[in-house]
Amino acid sequence: MTQGVTVGILGAGQLGRMLALSGYPLGLSFRFLEVASEAPAGEVASVVHGDWHDPAVLGRFAHGLDVISYEFENLPEASVRQLASLCPLFPPPSVLAVSQDRVQEKRLFSQLAIPTTAFFPVDTEAELIAAQAQLGFPFLLKTRRFGYDGKGQCVVRTPEEMRAAWQVLGGQPLLAELFVDFDREVSLIAVRSRSGETAFYPLVENVHEHGILRRSHVSVNADLSLEVAAHAYARALLDHLNYVGVLTIEFFQCGDALIANEIAPRVHNSGHWTIEGAQTSQFENHLRAILGLPLGATAARGDAIMWNLIGELPDVSAILSIPGVHLHLYGKTPKAGRKLGHVTVCERDPTVLARLRTRLSLLIWK
Amino acid sequence: MTQGVTVGILGAGQLGRMLALSGYPLGLSFRFLEVASEAPAGEVASVVHGDWHDPAVLGRFAHGLDVISYEFENLPEASVRQLASLCPLFPPPSVLAVSQDRVQEKRLFSQLAIPTTAFFPVDTEAELIAAQAQLGFPFLLKTRRFGYDGKGQCVVRTPEEMRAAWQVLGGQPLLAELFVDFDREVSLIAVRSRSGETAFYPLVENVHEHGILRRSHVSVNADLSLEVAAHAYARALLDHLNYVGVLTIEFFQCGDALIANEIAPRVHNSGHWTIEGAQTSQFENHLRAILGLPLGATAARGDAIMWNLIGELPDVSAILSIPGVHLHLYGKTPKAGRKLGHVTVCERDPTVLARLRTRLSLLIWK
Repeated sequence: MTQGVTVGILGAGQLGRMLALSGYPLGLSFRFLEVASEAPAGEVASVVHGDWHDPAVLGRFAHGLDVISYEFENLPEASVRQLASLCPLFPPPSVLAVSQDRVQEKRLFSQLAIPTTAFFPVDTEAELIAAQAQLGFPFLLKTRRFGYDGKGQCVVRTPEEMRAAWQVLGGQPLLAELFVDFDREVSLIAVRSRSGETAFYPLVENVHEHGILRRSHVSVNADLSLEVAAHAYARALLDHLNYVGVLTIEFFQCGDALIANEIAPRVHNSGHWTIEGAQTSQFENHLRAILGLPLGATAARGDAIMWNLIGELPDVSAILSIPGVHLHLYGKTPKAGRKLGHVTVCERDPTVLARLRTRLSLLIWK
Repeated sequence: MTQGVTVGILGAGQLGRMLALSGYPLGLSFRFLEVASEAPAGEVASVVHGDWHDPAVLGRFAHGLDVISYEFENLPEASVRQLASLCPLFPPPSVLAVSQDRVQEKRLFSQLAIPTTAFFPVDTEAELIAAQAQLGFPFLLKTRRFGYDGKGQCVVRTPEEMRAAWQVLGGQPLLAELFVDFDREVSLIAVRSRSGETAFYPLVENVHEHGILRRSHVSVNADLSLEVAAHAYARALLDHLNYVGVLTIEFFQCGDALIANEIAPRVHNSGHWTIEGAQTSQFENHLRAILGLPLGATAARGDAIMWNLIGELPDVSAILSIPGVHLHLYGKTPKAGRKLGHVTVCERDPTVLARLRTRLSLLIWK
């Protein structure tokens, strides 16, 4: 059964909000735990506000829940393990150690024979110089932990830039990484249920700007050999991690090759198109997976484009005047660089889609 | 703008619940007013519980709302008018007098040259006998007010049944109506916005059992001449009533003719398929209409079938194991004859749809 079942979610951002909105039709109830004062999920469900290092807060949050999950992976692993001792919790807490540390993540890719970029852990300036000697210029310098939306990383092109980058990032665990001149960035939304059933959405092409996802494209006429490779990599990760829930893998595509960049153990911005564009959304499939229900069909209903609404709210009337547009606002206060919502169009006719794309791009990036 | 706008809804049943779930992505907030203790919308939004005859309750409910609507038309008109004096309210309160009284409803159909069945108001047994003489047997005897889901009406085939029907229904305003041996029942979900823009969903075929809707079918290959006639009738009603919001019209189809049976001034059970099956759901379009936003596209995304889940909850795992199924549970306590949820499938391939239909019908009506 699903009616009467309460799902707890760590983090009450837009991902949590969309999890709740996709779970209500199944008859589920939701409770969120959030440190931040602004909680987009709080408009649609109850939120326990408190520090997730506090065992009392965790106990209060977990009381009476049937299953716990998270929409945000930079969580203290000890807290997540405490919650997992109180209530079934998915994805498994062991995934956090991997996804929170870029070096562990890359070592896992290598262990599972998933292509990834050459890299060197960097804790000292001497290690930085040694890494540069191996990688050449340009290369990437990144923090090992807590990077997101392009934060905590920079491209290093010259010795001067290397010194400057060390001034900014030095003193915390870092890694130096080969700069890949990729053709495009793609992501795979994969899902594995408690019974071990897996399903994969079509590969999504992602366009970033200043490290933030601006637009995702899905085409039903995708390159099948690429899809097959991506599925094999995902299946290796899912099975190795005994994973339950949605897992997102970001790849660089270079020619016919996929190079794994990072994973996110959660529903993902590049999967928002699935709400209207796929037979079952990533949010519903994550819930089905953690509840041990059969997974829903992941096929696209046509080509789709998703635009993020970043920094300022759009002209709602203008957006809604475009036929077939789906608008999603998260209830957040506008602020530069903040994801406030997204817009999706799904269309079987490529000519119509191209026209919609032009009209919407003009409206969204005025 | 839509973010920061709060919509008040009279009634907190499943229709209200689905209005809120379709409005959250637009950034809207919701508040409901409900007399009954069970409130399916209460799981997803705040509810003011209280008597809608009580001016203090109405004032508390209306405080700070931006617009008010209703999901239930058997409301005291005086209360609705009081609310309309406090806050913009749609559909207009004047519609309630028509939709609450089958005689007024039929007189309006006739006034607007919309075909409807012959009828006679019946307040006394003498009027009943006179009406029968005009209509012959069988005919229908119905209460003028507060009928729904087949309640408050019966088919009268013989003088004995006429006496029995009078025993049950007599003493309140009634009408006697010609019994129409129709080919099928269809409904039209129409919508008109504050700016006067109108839109129509494809005609839906409805299958009732014991007066309760069991199943709705939509086909993209519908009979266009029938659609054209239905749109003309709907446009006449919408414009005459200066209507704002979703209006549902139920018709009997006899050969090529549509005979109007009744209207519902709200989103409707026969429009639930629009959540996944149409480009914009009836719920979102109702909200767009009452907020004065452009209406969304109403085209079907393929053929669709919707089954009501009545009386008992289904085997959720079995339902979700069927590819492409969309399950909606309302959070209600199971009880004979109660609508607890619905299931929708949308499919472009008629062969696949036929197979899904067989599998689902077996599961739902075991």
